[in-house]
Parts: sequence; C-alpha cells; structure tokens
Amino acid sequence: MPHPPAAKVDPEERPGGLLEVDGELVENIATLLRAQQQGMVLNLVADLYPADLARLLSHLPFDEARRLFRWMPPEQGSDVLAELDSAFRADLLEEERPQRLTALLDDLDTDDAADVLADLSDEVALRILPDLEYADDLRELLGYGEETAGGIMAREYVAVPIDWTVADVTEEVRRNAETVEEIYAVFVIDEAETLQGVITLKRLLLSQADARIDSVMNEDFISVTTDVDQEEVARIMERYDLVSLPVVDGIGRLVGRITIDDVVDVIRDEAEEDIQRMSGMSGDEEPTDSVLRITRGRLPWLLLGLVGAGLSGLVIGSFEDALEQAVVLATFIPIVMAMAGNAGIQSSSIVVQGLASGDVWASDVWRRLGKEVLVASINGVALAVLLAAFVLIAALGLDTARLALTAGLSLFLVILLATCIGTTVPLFLHRFDIDPALATGPFITTSNDIIGLAVFFLLATLLYL
Amino acid sequence: MPHPPAAKVDPEERPGGLLEVDGELVENIATLLRAQQQGMVLNLVADLYPADLARLLSHLPFDEARRLFRWMPPEQGSDVLAELDSAFRADLLEEERPQRLTALLDDLDTDDAADVLADLSDEVALRILPDLEYADDLRELLGYGEETAGGIMAREYVAVPIDWTVADVTEEVRRNAETVEEIYAVFVIDEAETLQGVITLKRLLLSQADARIDSVMNEDFISVTTDVDQEEVARIMERYDLVSLPVVDGIGRLVGRITIDDVVDVIRDEAEEDIQRMSGMSGDEEPTDSVLRITRGRLPWLLLGLVGAGLSGLVIGSFEDALEQAVVLATFIPIVMAMAGNAGIQSSSIVVQGLASGDVWASDVWRRLGKEVLVASINGVALAVLLAAFVLIAALGLDTARLALTAGLSLFLVILLATCIGTTVPLFLHRFDIDPALATGPFITTSNDIIGLAVFFLLATLLYL
Repeated sequence: MPHPPAAKVDPEERPGGLLEVDGELVENIATLLRAQQQGMVLNLVADLYPADLARLLSHLPFDEARRLFRWMPPEQGSDVLAELDSAFRADLLEEERPQRLTALLDDLDTDDAADVLADLSDEVALRILPDLEYADDLRELLGYGEETAGGIMAREYVAVPIDWTVADVTEEVRRNAETVEEIYAVFVIDEAETLQGVITLKRLLLSQADARIDSVMNEDFISVTTDVDQEEVARIMERYDLVSLPVVDGIGRLVGRITIDDVVDVIRDEAEEDIQRMSGMSGDEEPTDSVLRITRGRLPWLLLGLVGAGLSGLVIGSFEDALEQAVVLATFIPIVMAMAGNAGIQSSSIVVQGLASGDVWASDVWRRLGKEVLVASINGVALAVLLAAFVLIAALGLDTARLALTAGLSLFLVILLATCIGTTVPLFLHRFDIDPALATGPFITTSNDIIGLAVFFLLATLLYL
Repeated sequence: MPHPPAAKVDPEERPGGLLEVDGELVENIATLLRAQQQGMVLNLVADLYPADLARLLSHLPFDEARRLFRWMPPEQGSDVLAELDSAFRADLLEEERPQRLTALLDDLDTDDAADVLADLSDEVALRILPDLEYADDLRELLGYGEETAGGIMAREYVAVPIDWTVADVTEEVRRNAETVEEIYAVFVIDEAETLQGVITLKRLLLSQADARIDSVMNEDFISVTTDVDQEEVARIMERYDLVSLPVVDGIGRLVGRITIDDVVDVIRDEAEEDIQRMSGMSGDEEPTDSVLRITRGRLPWLLLGLVGAGLSGLVIGSFEDALEQAVVLATFIPIVMAMAGNAGIQSSSIVVQGLASGDVWASDVWRRLGKEVLVASINGVALAVLLAAFVLIAALGLDTARLALTAGLSLFLVILLATCIGTTVPLFLHRFDIDPALATGPFITTSNDIIGLAVFFLLATLLYL
C-alpha cells in the first residue's frame, strides 16, 4: 500500500491531482464504466488510496463496481479488498476466477487474506487454499475464532533469537522491510520460540550496535493468548497505549502480532455493534448490505417488538372496564410508555457503556443501583409534580385532584422501576456472558412498557375510579 | 510511564506480583486508606500501571481516592491524571496546593497538561500557568477548540532541518528520546518551519547514514490543520492506518503532532457520545459522575420526552369519542407506538452510523431512502398480516374483519412512515451540521409516536367505526 498523499482535510483544499470521492465522482466513474472506458477509468483511480477506492466501489451500482474491480491490477485489487465490508467483498468475489483469486490473496497480509478466505464459500476457499503462497499460515489463522486475538492477528512480524546483537537485529529488520510492512517493534524469542522480550524500533535505534539484544530488550511486555476476545484485545491496547501486541499460544510461543490499526477497526466495529443491538438490530448490518439481508436482520427484532407490544396491549385490554369508565386514562398511555422507555434506556446505556470500557464492573451493582435510584427519585419527583400540575390546570377528567395524584404517582413509580430494571438487567446479563447491549434496546423498553402500564392502571383503579 | 508488564489477560493467570484491579482490591485499599497506612498503600500500588491506578481511584469512595492521590509522588500522580475522566479529575484536583499542581503538570506531556488545565477553574489555571515549564506551549494549545486537531495534538515531536543527513537525524532522535516518549516518525521542515516531509523510524533505520534526509523522506504525507474536528482526525488516521499525524497551521508550519493512542480515545469517546445521544442523554455522562451531575444531564431530555408524550396523549385525547365507541382501540396504542419506534430507530441508527464512519454521504438520501422503503415494505406487510390474523383469530372487537383491516393497514403505514422519518431526519440534520445522533433517540421516537397514533385513529374512524 502506498503511503497516503499530501492531503489537507478540506476537499476543496486538496492539492493537485488527488480526487475527492464524492457523489459527483461516483456518477462520472459509473458513466465511464458503462461506456467501457477501461483506460480512462483506471487512469482516474490509479492515484486513489485503497480506503478511498473502497468507498468509491461501495457507492457504485453493483454491476459497475464489479466491472471496475475486475479491471484493476491484482496489487490494487488486493489493497482495496482489505478495506471493504465483509458482505460486499463476498459478493464482489463471487464469480472471480480461481487464478485471479489466488493472485489477489497472495498480495494480502495474512490477517486480511484469512478474513477474505473466511468470506468465500467453503468450496471455493478449499479449492484455492493449497495454491496460496502462505497456505500453512492461513490454515492456522482460519483455525481461530473470528473475533479472537488469533482471528485478528497477522503472521507477519520480525522475530529474532535472544543471542543476537543489535546490529544483527537491525540487519534482520532491513531484510524483512519488504514483507513486513509495519514494524514498530521486534520480538525476541528463545530456541523453543517462546517470547522472551520486545524491543521498539526507537530503542533499537538508540542502542549500541554490538550490544546483545537481551541486554536492551524489554522483558516486561504485555502479550495475549490466541483465544482472548478481540474486545479485550482492544481494551488492553487502548488502556496501555500499545501500538503492537504479540500473540502467543498456550505455552508462550510467539504465533502472531496485532497492530493498532486492526484494533481501531475492532473498536469501531464493536461500538457499531452496540449501537445496533441497542436499536434492535442484528449488530452486523452494514450500509452496503442488500435489501434482503437488511430485511432478514431486522424482521426478527420487529417481530419480538410486536409480541412485546402485544403484551402491553393485553395489559390495557385487561383494564378495559376501567377505560370504559374513564376514557381519559388512555391519554396517559403514551406518557407512561415513553417515560418508562426513556428512563430505562438512560440508565442501561450508561451501564452498557461502562461495562464495554471496563469502567463499570459486575460487582458494582449495588453502588450503581444506589446512584441510579437517587437520580431517578429526583427526576421522578420533578416530572411527577409537573404532570400533576398540568392535569390540575387543564382540569382533565371528572375528579381532577384524584387524577392528578394518580398520574403523578404513577409517573414517579414508573421512572423508578424502569431505572432499576435498566440498571440491573445489563449487569445481570454481563455476569452470564450475554452481551448487555442486547438488553438495552427492545427488551428493556418492552418490559418497562408492560410494567409501567400495569402500575398505572392498577393505581388508576385504586385511586381514581 | 513505565512499559506495561508481562500480563496474560485472564486475571487468574497474571504472573507474580501484579495486582488485578477488582472489587476486592478496592475494598482492601479503602480499608488501608481509612487506617492511614500510607506506606503499605503506596507499596501496593507502586507497580500498578497508570490506567489501572486510574480505575482503582475512580472506584474508591471519593475521600479515600483523594487521600491516595495526595500521597502519590508527583510522577505517579501525573501519570494517573492523564488517564482519568475529566470531571473526576477536576474534583480530585480542586483543593490541591499550587506547588503540587505545578509539579504534576510539569510531568505531563503538553497535550495532557493542556487538558488538565482546561478542567481547572480559570482562576487556578491562570495562577499556575506562568510557573509551568512549558507555559508558552500550553498557552498555545489552550487557544484551540477542545475537540479540534489543535486541541488534541501535543507539542512533543522531533523536527529536523531538511539539509541534515540520516546520521544527524538519528542523533537528534537520540537527543529527544527522553522528552518525546513515543517516536514513530520524524518531521522534516524548511527554514520557515514549513513541513516538507515525514520519515518513519523504520525507514530511518534502513537508510544510509550519509544520505541527505530529503532524499529518503516521504514527501507525500497527510497532515491536518489545527482547526480540523477531532472526529475527522480520527477518520483520517483510521482510514489511512496512520500511527502519527503532523498538525500544521494555516500557512503549513508544523505546530504539533497527534498519535494514534489519542485518537483511539477520541473514537471511543465519540462512539459513547453517539450512544448516549441516541439514548436521550447529554453525551458526556461518565459512570463516575456525581448524582447531581447525572440528574442535571438527564432531566432536560426526560422533560422533552414528557412534552412529546403529552402531545401523543393529546392526539389520543382528540379521539376520545372514537375510544368511547370502541375501547378495544386502546389495545393497539402500544403496538402502534412500539412499532413506529422500532422501525424508526433501526433506519436512523444505520444512517447515523454510516454518517459517522463516512460510509453514508448526505448526497445518498434518495438511494438510502429507496433501500429503506423496500425493507420497510417487506417487513411492514409481514407484520401487518400477522397482526390482522391475530385480530381475526382472537375475534377482538365487534366487527372483527374491519378491525383486522384497520390494525393491519395502520401497522403497515406506521412502519413505512417511521422508516422514512428515521432515514431522512439524520441526513437532513447532517446537512445542517447538527449531530445526527441527536435525532435518533427521543426526537424520532416522539415524532413517530405522534404520527403513528394519528394515522391509526384516523384509519380507525374511517374503516372501523
């Protein structure tokens, strides 16, 4: 991958020649693609950087995107593959010839090549795997869970024996400069390939050429085993400001390395997954996904929502007599539902966020609950008084004072209950290793609706009717 | 900051001596702190890494946290300051003596020192600023917007004249090794201090010692100006896999540098802000915030929610006659509200996410809307048929067939409308430079509720009553 160009951020200020990937460029390239202007198109995109080219491809109509991808030389094609969304990439590669697939994969770093292989159908993957240059490395990488340290690590790293000198190591870095693109640190291993130390390039540069590497390396380094979850990997690199992290197997042998750019993607992906799960989605929807894929991902959640809302409806239905006596009660249904939802989501989202960043621990449940109950009490009283005052002023219902009391008290209780549920459910799920973000969206909203409506109609029956 | 220790991830597997920061440790340290066991406490926390120490502090009761912080030697204190949440840090420093504040700040990198200064009251900040070692650098940094490239950059970097040799530059890196902790690249400037090139340490290590630096440096580098938003900085470093990014002023002079670890924090913060805004919160709530601060941040959103829900209530109130004729209609209120909410949030959250990552453009509105309308139509038909079938089977209401038609058709329309609103509102807000995440939570939910209820009751009046 070439180094990114001299580019100011503002597209208008971009220096000569560099294209801004926007709607206009997409349209122009699409027109040229339809007109089969291969030379002109390839010339236009030649200077684009892989990430920009990926954005261009995913904004083109699919047939034009595939045509452009097929025209690209393998090196450019593989650079762009590493930047594409998984589902889109799979579609793009679906009808590629095996020889070209092999050429594309051989140009990729092993971590990216393994990701691409995982996207292909098993049949295709198995057919081309033996022809790939790093087939053994890839077989190993494919054996790890996709969302583990093993699944995101690369096999490209510089490892040196512990008895080498600084000069030997520098020479080794030089020899590997081509194949290992990003080198921030060199790993030092013993004869059993066990990781013994790490030395950063900065330190290497500052050390005497004839010093033994084990006298200058850092023996207090962080490493992870292959089975560590990628979210935990991200937290570790983030917490300790690491740029490169060695991965070892069960007995401490060096097997791979994770660089910060991969982890930045993990952080973004995990945050997107949380947002989606909180919004009642599958968690892996991408803007480039097909209509069918999106529909399949969303429908189950909508169905769940319908069933939950149906239960809320049943609660209301069971108080039909009360409603018949005083239709005005129906006016409060949206208030109860909205406030239960809002309060519950506020509490749960701060807990989900704290659990994700490691700032909230499962053992914090009582402390967190205490804080949330206090917040809910203050807010609940303020809002309850406001609602009661409004009922009094607007003189709603037949017995205004009792209706005001019913509405205010219900609102207070609903906010309090919703907050307790919003706080404890994510902590509870976290204990059982279920993603707490799942709880925050539809589940908490639905259960809070049901409980809130039940509380309101019970109080109305007791106090108002 | 010392290099993090050799630590497996699983706390049980941590090698000898390293403490796991958990509820047990927090309790033990709190007890020792209350017993004034200064020596023992400092000894226990001596080997903790700043990020772990920060987690320990923020889990201690506040008085104990402050005591521990005051006992720490300045170097340890400043390392931990850089890792704390802004509000908690401000509370912790509130009653510090000026001399100690000066010592703490002098030990920090300029970017962190500027952040801490910004947290202090203006009075305190102005009093200690002149005594600080890097007062001029800090004054400059404080002049930039907090969430811009200028606001997150540090003044620590290695810059060399363009006519130096590789050997000169290596020597300069050596001289700066102490003050500039992380060096991934050296910046090359001309006499006017204009940035002319960048050379990575890897490339420096591989170059001939007597080569002129301008013959080996990369002249095609990316830089940002000080006023670029931190979110854009994060996107750039993420997109082009950069570890270090030079910052220049309006006329191209090098003024600072941003490293990937700072950007990782930005990505995390921005994702948390989005999640919070979508949940109807201020966007900067931290789990460590005080009850009062949390209450203040959440109440306005709950108030807005109450007003919105009140409007939904008014819609229902305006159909009181219809409800009196057929109380069974109230049963459908939760269904209409929940499904409008769910469908609207699904569409808007994928748009918000796409806008944040740069995968969705404001110019995509028609394309995106087309896709979403298709998805909504498929899901809407499926759910509408289900609901209608349920009404028929359960034989709800007086005229089951008409009620089934009313319910089904309303559900379909509500899902379709909610989807259109959920898709277009974030794109619209984005055009006017308003954070689209703001729209996704309470606003879209509330407006969808109101529209959904109006559609349902209108259809009920037309078709059922």
